[in-house]
Amino acid sequence: MIHYDTEKQNGRFWLKENEFCPRFELKTESVFAQCNGYMGVRAAHPLSVLEENRGMFLCGAFDRAYEDEVTELVNCPDLTWFGLEIEGEAIHPEGTKLLSCTRKLDLFSGELQISYLFELKSGTKVQIINRRFASKDDIHLFAQDLQIKFSDGGRHEISIKTGINGQRTNSGVSHFRKADCRVYERRQMEMRGELSDNAVTVLSECSFRKGDVLSTDFVLGRRCIHESAVLCTDEDGEAAVEKITYVCQSEDGVSQESRKTAVTRAVREGYDHLFRVHAASMNEYRDTCSLRIDGISEEEEAAVCFAQYHIQGMTPWHTNRSSIAAKGLTGEGYKGHVFWDTELFIFPSLLFTYPKTARKLLEFRYYGLDGARNKARSYGFSGAMFPWEAAKSGEEETPLYAALNIYTGKANKVWSGIKEYHVTADIVYALNQYYEVTEDQDFMDRYGYEIAFEAAQFWASCAKWDEDHKKYGIYDIIGPDEYTEHIDNNAYTNYMAAYCVKTAKKYAENIRQERPDVYKRLDQMLNLHERFDTWKEFLELIYLPVPDNQGIIPQDDTFLSKPLLKNIEKYKKSQVKQAVLLDYSRDEIVDMQVLKQADVVMLLNLFPHMISEDLVRKNVLFYESRTIHDSSLSYCAHAQACAAIGAMDLAEDFFAKSLVIDIDDNPYDSTDGIHSASLGGVWNCLIFGFAGIHYEGGILYVQPHMPESWKSMEFKLEIAGEPIRFYITSDKVSLLSETDISHPINVNIGGQEYVFTGRLEAEPDMERESSRFNVAVS
Amino acid sequence: MIHYDTEKQNGRFWLKENEFCPRFELKTESVFAQCNGYMGVRAAHPLSVLEENRGMFLCGAFDRAYEDEVTELVNCPDLTWFGLEIEGEAIHPEGTKLLSCTRKLDLFSGELQISYLFELKSGTKVQIINRRFASKDDIHLFAQDLQIKFSDGGRHEISIKTGINGQRTNSGVSHFRKADCRVYERRQMEMRGELSDNAVTVLSECSFRKGDVLSTDFVLGRRCIHESAVLCTDEDGEAAVEKITYVCQSEDGVSQESRKTAVTRAVREGYDHLFRVHAASMNEYRDTCSLRIDGISEEEEAAVCFAQYHIQGMTPWHTNRSSIAAKGLTGEGYKGHVFWDTELFIFPSLLFTYPKTARKLLEFRYYGLDGARNKARSYGFSGAMFPWEAAKSGEEETPLYAALNIYTGKANKVWSGIKEYHVTADIVYALNQYYEVTEDQDFMDRYGYEIAFEAAQFWASCAKWDEDHKKYGIYDIIGPDEYTEHIDNNAYTNYMAAYCVKTAKKYAENIRQERPDVYKRLDQMLNLHERFDTWKEFLELIYLPVPDNQGIIPQDDTFLSKPLLKNIEKYKKSQVKQAVLLDYSRDEIVDMQVLKQADVVMLLNLFPHMISEDLVRKNVLFYESRTIHDSSLSYCAHAQACAAIGAMDLAEDFFAKSLVIDIDDNPYDSTDGIHSASLGGVWNCLIFGFAGIHYEGGILYVQPHMPESWKSMEFKLEIAGEPIRFYITSDKVSLLSETDISHPINVNIGGQEYVFTGRLEAEPDMERESSRFNVAVS
Repeated sequence: MIHYDTEKQNGRFWLKENEFCPRFELKTESVFAQCNGYMGVRAAHPLSVLEENRGMFLCGAFDRAYEDEVTELVNCPDLTWFGLEIEGEAIHPEGTKLLSCTRKLDLFSGELQISYLFELKSGTKVQIINRRFASKDDIHLFAQDLQIKFSDGGRHEISIKTGINGQRTNSGVSHFRKADCRVYERRQMEMRGELSDNAVTVLSECSFRKGDVLSTDFVLGRRCIHESAVLCTDEDGEAAVEKITYVCQSEDGVSQESRKTAVTRAVREGYDHLFRVHAASMNEYRDTCSLRIDGISEEEEAAVCFAQYHIQGMTPWHTNRSSIAAKGLTGEGYKGHVFWDTELFIFPSLLFTYPKTARKLLEFRYYGLDGARNKARSYGFSGAMFPWEAAKSGEEETPLYAALNIYTGKANKVWSGIKEYHVTADIVYALNQYYEVTEDQDFMDRYGYEIAFEAAQFWASCAKWDEDHKKYGIYDIIGPDEYTEHIDNNAYTNYMAAYCVKTAKKYAENIRQERPDVYKRLDQMLNLHERFDTWKEFLELIYLPVPDNQGIIPQDDTFLSKPLLKNIEKYKKSQVKQAVLLDYSRDEIVDMQVLKQADVVMLLNLFPHMISEDLVRKNVLFYESRTIHDSSLSYCAHAQACAAIGAMDLAEDFFAKSLVIDIDDNPYDSTDGIHSASLGGVWNCLIFGFAGIHYEGGILYVQPHMPESWKSMEFKLEIAGEPIRFYITSDKVSLLSETDISHPINVNIGGQEYVFTGRLEAEPDMERESSRFNVAVS
Repeated sequence: MIHYDTEKQNGRFWLKENEFCPRFELKTESVFAQCNGYMGVRAAHPLSVLEENRGMFLCGAFDRAYEDEVTELVNCPDLTWFGLEIEGEAIHPEGTKLLSCTRKLDLFSGELQISYLFELKSGTKVQIINRRFASKDDIHLFAQDLQIKFSDGGRHEISIKTGINGQRTNSGVSHFRKADCRVYERRQMEMRGELSDNAVTVLSECSFRKGDVLSTDFVLGRRCIHESAVLCTDEDGEAAVEKITYVCQSEDGVSQESRKTAVTRAVREGYDHLFRVHAASMNEYRDTCSLRIDGISEEEEAAVCFAQYHIQGMTPWHTNRSSIAAKGLTGEGYKGHVFWDTELFIFPSLLFTYPKTARKLLEFRYYGLDGARNKARSYGFSGAMFPWEAAKSGEEETPLYAALNIYTGKANKVWSGIKEYHVTADIVYALNQYYEVTEDQDFMDRYGYEIAFEAAQFWASCAKWDEDHKKYGIYDIIGPDEYTEHIDNNAYTNYMAAYCVKTAKKYAENIRQERPDVYKRLDQMLNLHERFDTWKEFLELIYLPVPDNQGIIPQDDTFLSKPLLKNIEKYKKSQVKQAVLLDYSRDEIVDMQVLKQADVVMLLNLFPHMISEDLVRKNVLFYESRTIHDSSLSYCAHAQACAAIGAMDLAEDFFAKSLVIDIDDNPYDSTDGIHSASLGGVWNCLIFGFAGIHYEGGILYVQPHMPESWKSMEFKLEIAGEPIRFYITSDKVSLLSETDISHPINVNIGGQEYVFTGRLEAEPDMERESSRFNVAVS
């Protein structure tokens, strides 16, 4: 199931590859990547291997290479390559006799360690160990070291070459308009690569810690610079080099002098010291979002830690001008773009652990408002229509056409950017969650209201009146499930649109009463007073599909009348994602009851109290049987939904699958980056699903449904500004605040009401159904 | 000395690499490349290897990627890669147990054959043979086949993947604005890559000749398309696939239908048939430029054949809109640009064997006249100043600045494009040779006169009057020897300028008398009548350095007064080219008597009758002792000069060195392409040096100086429209025309005069000094 081994040892938690594994190379480069939210460096071997795709991706370093290409996250210069020659022999895992090879990622610190034992042609054995990490203490620093040890000891000559290689491309597409190289004080190598409206600067210095340097030279190539050194090992047959790199972008405003000083200081401090400081920051992170489950296997624990490590690695802690990409900073996949799932799958874990950072993600959307307004206008709508794919500016980045159909030569239109409206409601859902959980009035005044009002206006403007039904509907769109296109009244979309408008209306009414200054400013800007009636009418008359006589909420107007896909089990089991598209055309798929991921299940996760538990169960089971789970978001969403209704067998099965999306034994998956949202989904599934946490209307709901094998769950959430420690067992729920809390919180545990004032222990009847009410439309 | 083995067998002449040799990979890819004058495909392994640089270069396919880059020959999509998986094992020379490996180039046909014997993990042995050639019969066709044979026979399953990969870049710089892929009739894969003002289309079809196809599929990637097939070997354990590719550029005007038809037909005919037709064309070529030396070793013969193969491969037989690049079509070196050495080192062999093709090279310069006029104007001169580096348009392509100095951060100015004037005389030298040898009046009327007049005008305009000496001089320039910059009155340049102006003046006088229509047209265009006096004055007063009291022609005004480089022998012996620049700055080099190549020696090659044989000898020996031979043009020029004066020990030594410029055991040379001009120099050295051929003023001079070990030289030259077969032994020179000749030719053999009317045998006193006269300034 899980491709990697695990090992806990000396405060480390290793995910390990115990042999040289070329078939998994591209996957492991993504999975083991060093990321700190500013930079992500793929975990390629230091030595050349046949199948590799080295990559460094920087938060916000986007570029569009040509008119016919889209804006993408640039594959920045490589820092990780080391050329090694011993006794005239070039050393590579494939070209040299390799006795053993281990590559492992410390899930706690994010450090990568790769070690090889080679046997040279002469019979001499040489051990090589490479370590590296992207510092959480100084996000611009990337540290590496390379240790070489001859098993027979004694003095040996070694040639080492390493540097900065700007010849990397995004699958053959180059982005740097020019790349200038420098060497400072015959120590520090620099490359500055110019993008269309940004520049990436990389400054590296090598220090030779063990062995004697016989000679060293700097070699300039096209878009690359390398230091080439000849070393002699010390008497114990050892040599070691540390390489410290500082990476920044022109917009970071770091002066040349500061960069050089930072590298000089870091080189002086050395790898081990830098690592200790970094590891301390990583410990703080792990403490803040600590999540312990007594009763899960070491593998499962590793998978949870893996998700937390990468959430740390993909989150732009330092800026509100970028958000989280579908592959984080681990690969070229999805071009580094930001989708709806950032708000729905990743945002929650940050909201409850790092609310200030969660706020930044929403601020990113605020800075994209003008782009969203342009998009709405260009499609004949008003308000703000958020981009399906965002990069940095907030403009829509989804290409209008995909690559030509290779058989017909016709361009396939990409409908997601045009028709997948729901992102505009998803953002407001996240925004309202943020407001409820943090009560951050400053955010709302500056950014939140404006986003919500503009989003609501979009929905009001795109709904169409149906004279027959005397209802508003939303027509010809795509819901989250992309196997059904051009459908009408997608349940997910209509409910989310209603939620968005309802939320905006409530905000507007509140500020008109209570914050007249804010109201006045926004009214002047957006004509709020004219919008009230529109919103009211929309909410009164929007069509919201209710459960049919079987209890099923129809996914859209026609879904339930379509035929089933008979051999769906074949595709559910396939290791190849979207294998169904090899057997059926997209048009055929659209005309069947077959789903990539289930919209209604997702909807019920977002509104756990919308319908009765019994109906939830019916809907989840109905839609799951029609879902191939070809989206990496599907398993975690289903796990959460099933856990919430106590369907534990299904919940555990889906949870197990969602845990290994990136680390299972499928070598063809995750090759172009990890699945960010799915990792967020693991947290949602644990906290919202198994622990049954829901916070709404000032009430903290806790309705745990833990697998039988779990003894307890322990985690920390920040709610209404209060960090609360949760401890949940099969029969008890404990809440504890580490500090004096400023105001009491109403809590509903398993349907019983409590007031939390700093310490609470409850032993509710876990089987009792919690109270349910419809939050979606009043 | 020579890195490769040689083998003659069944009408083939193989240059061979008998083992897998990663250190020589980049060199061998260049040296063994398949080239037909339209395309050049580097001889990379079909299977992936660690250190490789696949490349296909098309004549005329230039592009400039960014404002700060120069126009360069684009590394086009790769066709040569094959992915092979047997028994779930990916097969690579480095990743799989390799029992043997041979890669060899047939110097006669240009076919490449690579064979491997692998042992799989299961112990099964598999032989793989890959063959390929670039067709001389249809220059757009590239044919490959791949044969797989299991030593234990029987049926085995094999996965094969191959296609068109447009992810190749020029050292990290991409050129295709977009790259669209298609599949026609589920057989033919196509990629069309758009350049700024051109497009490259590649169409490939695989046919599976042996074994059963179990499945086949086409897979689209970013800028690449591949066919992925699963085969089962036949009962003998064999499978085979042929891959036929058609490559063209938009400017070739080949319709989609013709491309598809050409591939369909070629696939039907099959590799072996296509090869036979191709080989017949190659035989014709070898017959036309046949050159046999009785008495040289097989290695030396291989080197001569190697030169002839690559001259065939680099020459644009099909067009007058491109010329010959410094690396032909074999690599990225020198960006595919055309320099002066095309006219002086490669042009002669074409002139005497394929005069119509030689004419095309001159027509290329004619189409560059406007660019040359612009360049002259921009530097304040008149007439035409030809570019130091030309690509396609004839505009100057030399960048104004090289990469930043990595230590100072300052840009180094590239002076060659500004100061290396001599190319403008070199072209006229070639032009006049062409006119003398072919008597092609049509060429002169259309193109030749105009080039010569504009070049002469440039020289007259750039010479400066020196009041002290009452002479014109040419100041602050660079001669062919680039280790002396910013010098005055470079002997090579002044003599060549004088020759250019003298030639133009003579042309103008002739046409005024004899071709009044042509004169009138050119006079109207160029104001010829005003130029006469300028040219006359220039010729009367240009400073032409004469031998000093030691008999040495000073290379420039200050050269002889500079100190010697004391340890020059160190650099002469160094395997690393330009090693002297590692120890001395360029400024220091300029201030010493040290040469990259010797200008005066080159000058004496061009004007063999300029000074007495004794003075030639003195000058050659004097300058050779100051020359590091860091230019690949230096050995052949010195060999030619020494042979011409009968300094046979030196001549043989330099000749041996010039033969192996690309094929010696230096792995770091020729990695980015073969040395085109040096290969031309081998021919010059043989024909002009050892055979002592010189044709001038309607007289064919033959003054052989053959090494003692040579029994005879036999070759064919076309002179004044007559193909003449030469047979030279130590005591006899025979000339024979295969057809009736139209008019007799005056011949001077070893100083004795003859008239050739179709058959001539002479036994001159080879030791007698031939008559000498100054052709440079009359």
